Amino acid sequence: MKLTGNLLIGANEVPATEGTMKALNPATNQLIEPDFALGGVADVDRAANLADEAFDQYSHTSLAQRSAFLERIADNLDAVTPELAARAALETGLPEAQLQGEAAKAATQFRQFAAVVRKGRFLQVAIDPAQPDRQPRPRMDHRLQKIAIGPVAIFGASNFPISYSVAGGDTASALAAGATVIVKAHNAHPGASEIQARAIRQAVQDSGLPEGVFSMVRGGGNAIGEALVDHPLIKAVTFTGSEQGGMALYRRAQLRPEPIPVFTEMTSINPTFILPHALATRGEQIGDGFVERMLVNVGQACLKPAILIAIDGSGFEALRAAMAKRVAAAPARPMLTPGIHASYTRGLDDLQNAGAKLVVEGSAANGDVDGQSALLEVDGQHFLTETALAHEVFGPAALLVKVRDEAEMLAVARSLRGQLSATLHLEQSDFELAQRLLPILERRTGRIVVNAFAHPQEVSFATIHGGPFPASSDSRFTSVGMTSIERFLRPVSYQGFPDALLPEALREINPLGVPRSVDGQ
Amino acid sequence: MKLTGNLLIGANEVPATEGTMKALNPATNQLIEPDFALGGVADVDRAANLADEAFDQYSHTSLAQRSAFLERIADNLDAVTPELAARAALETGLPEAQLQGEAAKAATQFRQFAAVVRKGRFLQVAIDPAQPDRQPRPRMDHRLQKIAIGPVAIFGASNFPISYSVAGGDTASALAAGATVIVKAHNAHPGASEIQARAIRQAVQDSGLPEGVFSMVRGGGNAIGEALVDHPLIKAVTFTGSEQGGMALYRRAQLRPEPIPVFTEMTSINPTFILPHALATRGEQIGDGFVERMLVNVGQACLKPAILIAIDGSGFEALRAAMAKRVAAAPARPMLTPGIHASYTRGLDDLQNAGAKLVVEGSAANGDVDGQSALLEVDGQHFLTETALAHEVFGPAALLVKVRDEAEMLAVARSLRGQLSATLHLEQSDFELAQRLLPILERRTGRIVVNAFAHPQEVSFATIHGGPFPASSDSRFTSVGMTSIERFLRPVSYQGFPDALLPEALREINPLGVPRSVDGQ
Repeated sequence: MKLTGNLLIGANEVPATEGTMKALNPATNQLIEPDFALGGVADVDRAANLADEAFDQYSHTSLAQRSAFLERIADNLDAVTPELAARAALETGLPEAQLQGEAAKAATQFRQFAAVVRKGRFLQVAIDPAQPDRQPRPRMDHRLQKIAIGPVAIFGASNFPISYSVAGGDTASALAAGATVIVKAHNAHPGASEIQARAIRQAVQDSGLPEGVFSMVRGGGNAIGEALVDHPLIKAVTFTGSEQGGMALYRRAQLRPEPIPVFTEMTSINPTFILPHALATRGEQIGDGFVERMLVNVGQACLKPAILIAIDGSGFEALRAAMAKRVAAAPARPMLTPGIHASYTRGLDDLQNAGAKLVVEGSAANGDVDGQSALLEVDGQHFLTETALAHEVFGPAALLVKVRDEAEMLAVARSLRGQLSATLHLEQSDFELAQRLLPILERRTGRIVVNAFAHPQEVSFATIHGGPFPASSDSRFTSVGMTSIERFLRPVSYQGFPDALLPEALREINPLGVPRSVDGQ
Repeated sequence: MKLTGNLLIGANEVPATEGTMKALNPATNQLIEPDFALGGVADVDRAANLADEAFDQYSHTSLAQRSAFLERIADNLDAVTPELAARAALETGLPEAQLQGEAAKAATQFRQFAAVVRKGRFLQVAIDPAQPDRQPRPRMDHRLQKIAIGPVAIFGASNFPISYSVAGGDTASALAAGATVIVKAHNAHPGASEIQARAIRQAVQDSGLPEGVFSMVRGGGNAIGEALVDHPLIKAVTFTGSEQGGMALYRRAQLRPEPIPVFTEMTSINPTFILPHALATRGEQIGDGFVERMLVNVGQACLKPAILIAIDGSGFEALRAAMAKRVAAAPARPMLTPGIHASYTRGLDDLQNAGAKLVVEGSAANGDVDGQSALLEVDGQHFLTETALAHEVFGPAALLVKVRDEAEMLAVARSLRGQLSATLHLEQSDFELAQRLLPILERRTGRIVVNAFAHPQEVSFATIHGGPFPASSDSRFTSVGMTSIERFLRPVSYQGFPDALLPEALREINPLGVPRSVDGQ
């Protein structure tokens, strides 16, 4: 595929209206061809109007047609995987093999949502039949289904250039819901974005759907994102990125004349708690596994475990030594962008200024954007007094928090803001302490993991990737997993309808065979 | 029950800290005894701290214990129904028999939620079992359930002093979710509020629950409401009332350091469309039924049908004549408060200033706050140019919109903002037009009703009382019906847990017998 650098607005190839940019190869610090178009407010307006025009038809596609469309996207992604992974590797410095896995995961995700759509359970059909003889008054027939909320704007992340980007979970779940989609591509990987966008657009065309089902825009600065969030035809927004960026969009959307739901996935330090018996029996192994996980993607992952809390005592020295050894041996690798690299360096300074002690650093950097790994340490009492120590540092660093006793471990847990995940390492003899820790963590996290390090994000029915603020802007939703579709669905109740006027899923004979609850059963 | 006028903060009887107020009997324009305490920021802080302290225990009550508690509230409400209805009638001017019905409905609602809790389907348990042999990597066991979001602040409505007030659906659904609750009682019915609050508080005590499960506060001006919305321990807010009031709270909550979900149910004109064949065959009957419904509760209802759209032609004159006759015969009845009465009068002026013609008025008012009914009319073309004509006038008035043809009827539908409900009157020969109208209405309403006038709000599984903005602040939720509980629930995923540490609903043998989906089935 030859990259054109155009914006893809519906079926239109739109060249630059607000200048151009080039991608940067962070491994070489060189710009890469070609020029990529930057767009502006008028481009957003055009995309939003197309998305709105396409909405009625697309949101009323049959379940069969919509799931076939999602499978077509998956097939198209499979077809471009080699060039997509190669381009993404150039633009991110991440290993090509890993990116092939990410592309495969993205395609799988579209197929999983195709299955969700085909089964129709997401419609959450509920029927309360008429009760003409009910006293004191009859009940009319009520039937509920969920429909798409409207056109959706999606802001891709920088760090996973496929699975959290143009063809990521947000796009898959929004299209599955029946929403039309405008993606604002992340400028850290414009070529990978274009390849994904063309795969989706081709599927729109092959499926005979209206062009406005999908568009991709790109811009310099904040204007294009603000225009998307402000546009009256946009009815929901998703974002994955920093707390600062996410909250700016969130608050902006809430100040619109008509506020709209914005799901932002922002920041998490994903605390790991090592309970005493686990520490005593396998402190070294835990330290080793923790650092391995911490280094994945050069620490640029929303699920990176950034702090580890352990009680000073048996096993603690072994834990620290194992971590230090592993960090010391870690090569410096290129980070995604110079901006992220600069923030990482500042973040490490901030932790040290707040009282964290540097235990050890990894191999020194060669290139300008190489992230040098770091292990820091602080004691629990100090951690509790310095909120800056609980802020995420995006990159290959972790903070070991040495607590005095169980009470201090619980206090550290209570001090935490909202998290995407928390992890416990425990043995059976730690259950009593775990039972005191769990209610504290439940209130603060979307996911709790026991005895695991390498827990790549599953995309399944019980997956949650979200959590209390600031992990996300709305703890009631998730951005990953099959229930992420719920962000884009709203219920409509149909009361007293003649069968012929009901949506298909609600008709008396259930022609689609979708699961339906009757009187709540 | 002797009314004390105290704030009820947990188990504490809190006398006035910021002055007192008396209730007004709108039928006589006389103040009624006793004095009711007004509280302030410190009272909110105390209630919020109690709600937070009670949260862990209450949110972890067993399903059996929580449902027994909800049934206890229902029993306590039944026991006070006669005095509650009598006091509410004094404070609102509404008929006592109607208020007895409302109290019965409120008690029923607690019993319905008790059944929802006992069955445990609201936990939405999903299990994705471990797949140790999966390639390329094993899958860990994932289990999801929903838990309560945290302490909730509830702002009661003025117009239904029981079912949308202290013991209304918001309180029932929040307590069912496992959230602790602070109600800000509406100053239009302080005595009815106290009776309900005592019934709930007695149930808290009888059930051996921590006192912070429920509090009721009251204040003059906006300070107390703002303090509730601002309080860092409050994690969700619900409100039923005006667009102005609702949006002030909504935006305030979004500007908190930690924004929180606010569900506001605000404004709707509940358009009724009469399709041509229905108009020709039963225009008179429709006009009659429409006005009867419009007059319920002196027009002070969120579901009041405020505009009626019909095509000029066969049956139109019969429709208008029937409406005019019924409106002319309507007695003026006291409105809820002098403020609502003044707004109603202003609203009628605004409609006329915007070009609506007064067709007929009802009997003249006797008392100062009596609402005189009114029928106004405007043609479709003018309606489309004057957005002021589509604003809700809360009270016993309706606007007949005479459209030229089907295209103009569709244009009027397209011009509407978000609505709680829309109604169609149609015959089989109107289906073709209905099919063009329905996609337009689906995007704009939470509920669509066919061929009905008297459709009191059902509280069932397929009920939706919500809709696109400004009907509500989040079209993905409802404030009435069994799914209203979802506003207060958030998912947590438990990964790789030993069975003994799992919440009961997620354990392998399913000891609670709750419905659980496995791999999405």
